[in-house]
Amino acid sequence: MNITVPKKLLSDQLSLLERIVPSRSANPLYTYLGLYAEEGALILFGTNGEVDLEVRLPAEAQSLPRVLVPAQPFFQLVRSLPGDLVALGLASEPGQGGQLELSSGRFRTRLSLAPAEGYPELLVPEGEDKGAFPLRTRMPSGELVKALTHVRYAASNEEYRAIFRGVQLEFSPQGFRAVASDGYRLALYDLPLPQGFQAKAVVPARSVDEMVRVLKGADGAEADLALGEGVLALALEGGSGVRMALRLMEGEFPDYQRVIPQEFALKVQVEGEALREAVRRVSVLSDRQNHRVDLLLEEGRILLSAEGDYGKGQEEVPAQVEGPGMAVAYNARYLLEALAPVGDRAHLGISGPTSPSLIWGDGEGYRAVVVPLRV
Amino acid sequence: MNITVPKKLLSDQLSLLERIVPSRSANPLYTYLGLYAEEGALILFGTNGEVDLEVRLPAEAQSLPRVLVPAQPFFQLVRSLPGDLVALGLASEPGQGGQLELSSGRFRTRLSLAPAEGYPELLVPEGEDKGAFPLRTRMPSGELVKALTHVRYAASNEEYRAIFRGVQLEFSPQGFRAVASDGYRLALYDLPLPQGFQAKAVVPARSVDEMVRVLKGADGAEADLALGEGVLALALEGGSGVRMALRLMEGEFPDYQRVIPQEFALKVQVEGEALREAVRRVSVLSDRQNHRVDLLLEEGRILLSAEGDYGKGQEEVPAQVEGPGMAVAYNARYLLEALAPVGDRAHLGISGPTSPSLIWGDGEGYRAVVVPLRV
Repeated sequence: MNITVPKKLLSDQLSLLERIVPSRSANPLYTYLGLYAEEGALILFGTNGEVDLEVRLPAEAQSLPRVLVPAQPFFQLVRSLPGDLVALGLASEPGQGGQLELSSGRFRTRLSLAPAEGYPELLVPEGEDKGAFPLRTRMPSGELVKALTHVRYAASNEEYRAIFRGVQLEFSPQGFRAVASDGYRLALYDLPLPQGFQAKAVVPARSVDEMVRVLKGADGAEADLALGEGVLALALEGGSGVRMALRLMEGEFPDYQRVIPQEFALKVQVEGEALREAVRRVSVLSDRQNHRVDLLLEEGRILLSAEGDYGKGQEEVPAQVEGPGMAVAYNARYLLEALAPVGDRAHLGISGPTSPSLIWGDGEGYRAVVVPLRV
Repeated sequence: MNITVPKKLLSDQLSLLERIVPSRSANPLYTYLGLYAEEGALILFGTNGEVDLEVRLPAEAQSLPRVLVPAQPFFQLVRSLPGDLVALGLASEPGQGGQLELSSGRFRTRLSLAPAEGYPELLVPEGEDKGAFPLRTRMPSGELVKALTHVRYAASNEEYRAIFRGVQLEFSPQGFRAVASDGYRLALYDLPLPQGFQAKAVVPARSVDEMVRVLKGADGAEADLALGEGVLALALEGGSGVRMALRLMEGEFPDYQRVIPQEFALKVQVEGEALREAVRRVSVLSDRQNHRVDLLLEEGRILLSAEGDYGKGQEEVPAQVEGPGMAVAYNARYLLEALAPVGDRAHLGISGPTSPSLIWGDGEGYRAVVVPLRV
């Protein structure tokens, strides 16, 4: 055996790859997990064609060439191994293809290897070579998580919405912005981190989810981002540990600035959770097609109501309302999702049933646009 | 409002009904929840056509006639109500059908009622009237749960397996037995509780799951069982609180006694969890069609091995083996499920690859029969 690695470490790091590597794929090679070793490190890698991921962990290791093992049994086995250590090495039997021998405690297995030819080259940048990745920046992983998770919900899940199925990342000297929209509502989050270059990149929303998962595991480390042709690379703490490459969507968002309202007939301040709870309750009665909930905004309160096949419901929420009384209706799901990232205090800017409304929180970079339903 | 009930109490009790009442059904009336009140009590009831359930909770109540409310919104609403109390009452508006008014805190709703005609009569027995339920018995709910949960897994999930999709309950002066089989394996559990009558009743496995859930909520109370024509009724603590009626399957199990082996060429004792873990690991490598895992039984050990497309695996488990060395193979899933209810110590009685094997634990009423795969 040429590699020994603590079971828990291996098992923990595999959980990142387990989410990426598909159990079934039109390209069967994607269902394999790659691994190789060099002095002192075991490197595991996988891809689903959209996201490449590489994880490096310290191990008692001599060198092992790149091999491909069937990913699903490898994941299942490692999770359940009886020993504290896992030993890995190449085995070959006469008349057979290569095999990876894995043992732990009283358990031993030999996994059949796939030929490595045809496995895609991972797109992670190598060290300081700026050739394929000319645009580079670094930001705190926690801030990046905040920006991505605040806007993710607004991306479209519909196959045919093309570019709206992604989250647009905007790098500029003014700062960093994440923005998502499905054409009916929009969410953006600004980080006041001036960037050394101007660029836009649209990451598929599902890849954003994986990016967030990796960043959350970074435990506050700095995230290195590198933009190349059609790809965004992410590395944690200067390239060691986890490296990730995300294929970008082609194109960029149409100009959305003009739909963000700047002035409002009515400004509302309300306790965030109280409003969310009331919308949730009242919307149980809403029409099951359009999820319509009506808001009557008056001095000192919002009166919410909904009516559908089941009956009708209403609830009053105390609020600070500046401006003339007004009635406006929203799709309850859109309203709830826009309100979800807002903390204790929600601000609403409303100009009537035919103008987009703006929702934001106290002093955060988050803003959401929701278009009211026609009354 | 004529009824006031604590929200938490209502919400907790509804969770039982929530599992029974379907959100969609060929009979739309099943998607409604019934309720009525009499002095000091609110009674809720529902059915899915297989299981009837009635829950009675103390409430400040005057009388309320039987009404049917749409169940799904009622469940959703009650769970999320803002107040500590829920008030219920009948409301009717001119020119409309009946409505149930529900209010809690600042929230108010009116739910449209369905006409109660056509809603099935629940099959729960009324008081001491033995007419429709001549056979009655009582046993500790915890014991009954044990018997049912030990054997449930062996029932078939296949539509075409008819009677094998149920769990047979056997009442006799010798005791109470629960038994399940899908034709390939069998599990039974004997309770040494002599019964005053002789009868067999087959409860659909899915209804058994609901029965177990209700019994688990009984917190050690006695369970009253009553057998009627095609129905088993269950009440907790003398008829107050929860009452349940389960429609029985027609017929009874074919004679299964002859497949339970009484003598074995080989007797094995082994640590239960060690064997289960080893089977789980080795079976990762097993053939994905038949899940075959091979056991080589030798003095002092069981050597498990499996081989499939992914490669092969093996593990050794220390064991007390009495008898000649022997090789036998099982479907790993069947073996694991038969071993699951066995505690710290598993006993296996094996007579070779063409005879059924018996599995049991230390001094429990549980026995399982598994048929080996042909070597």
